[in-house]
Amino acid sequence: MQELVPVPITASNFTEFGSVIETENADQREINAGTTIRFHDLATIDVSDNNGHPIVSIFRGIPRTFPLEIVMLERHPLGSQAFYPLGNQPYIVVVASSGQDGLPETLRAFYALPSQGVNYNKGVWHHPLICCGSVSEFLVIDREGEGDNLEEFRLPNHKKSSLVLPRD
Amino acid sequence: MQELVPVPITASNFTEFGSVIETENADQREINAGTTIRFHDLATIDVSDNNGHPIVSIFRGIPRTFPLEIVMLERHPLGSQAFYPLGNQPYIVVVASSGQDGLPETLRAFYALPSQGVNYNKGVWHHPLICCGSVSEFLVIDREGEGDNLEEFRLPNHKKSSLVLPRD
Repeated sequence: MQELVPVPITASNFTEFGSVIETENADQREINAGTTIRFHDLATIDVSDNNGHPIVSIFRGIPRTFPLEIVMLERHPLGSQAFYPLGNQPYIVVVASSGQDGLPETLRAFYALPSQGVNYNKGVWHHPLICCGSVSEFLVIDREGEGDNLEEFRLPNHKKSSLVLPRD
Repeated sequence: MQELVPVPITASNFTEFGSVIETENADQREINAGTTIRFHDLATIDVSDNNGHPIVSIFRGIPRTFPLEIVMLERHPLGSQAFYPLGNQPYIVVVASSGQDGLPETLRAFYALPSQGVNYNKGVWHHPLICCGSVSEFLVIDREGEGDNLEEFRLPNHKKSSLVLPRD
């Protein structure tokens, strides 16, 4: 099984899949009489298809053990999904671009810091939450509404991968 | 000047003003093959008036010194505004109900834990972010769109208050 090694996530290497929610390089605005900096509009929340609306939830994930076999991906065809970590643990993001048949192509893995959230664009194939180290919570902004917003795809054997932690 | 002493925030004592975003008493769903609990739909995000849409930002606030004179409130007439703390500091929420003239009535102060976010309902009078102890960051979900979504009101002298920290 091929090995998948995460690289540090950045706005530019993740742009095909969505946004990195972070203060770095953000539009900064001083508000509240100088007592607050607003890092403005860090992700494209896209949930209005088919009368959808945004909801806020908390996800609490148990830590995975590595190497982790990546055997499936999922996607939300009707809306984006944003995760922002609430604790001090890094986490791992596995995504894939879609081929002409709409199915996942090459898998990519990213390592995100506790100061980095991610927002998957609508329809982007991704693995369910991969927590590291300890039980981790995330604030999640996604879509509620009519229609089936979850597709799951079981990877064929030649695309299954063994996700390892970065070596540094 | 009257003294304003915060009480611990709860879903029930804050219901007139908005929601407390917390796992306690939430609708829990097991997802991701049992590796994640989803605490589902914890706040009413209400940002669609006048073609508004939801945005995600990070606010970084400097800690206040107490007692803090509360001399103004603000409100967002076109949308809700949610705050979730990203660090380990508690914070203070000051709100007021609206009178028949639409102006703030009695001030109320609440003390929120690092595991509690708040969502101000559309149009609720509130004080700008009040951080305690150290520089604190919050994930904020509010509205972007046409129209003027900020009203500020300078309190008359008899409503100005001196906000103190809880005594316990």
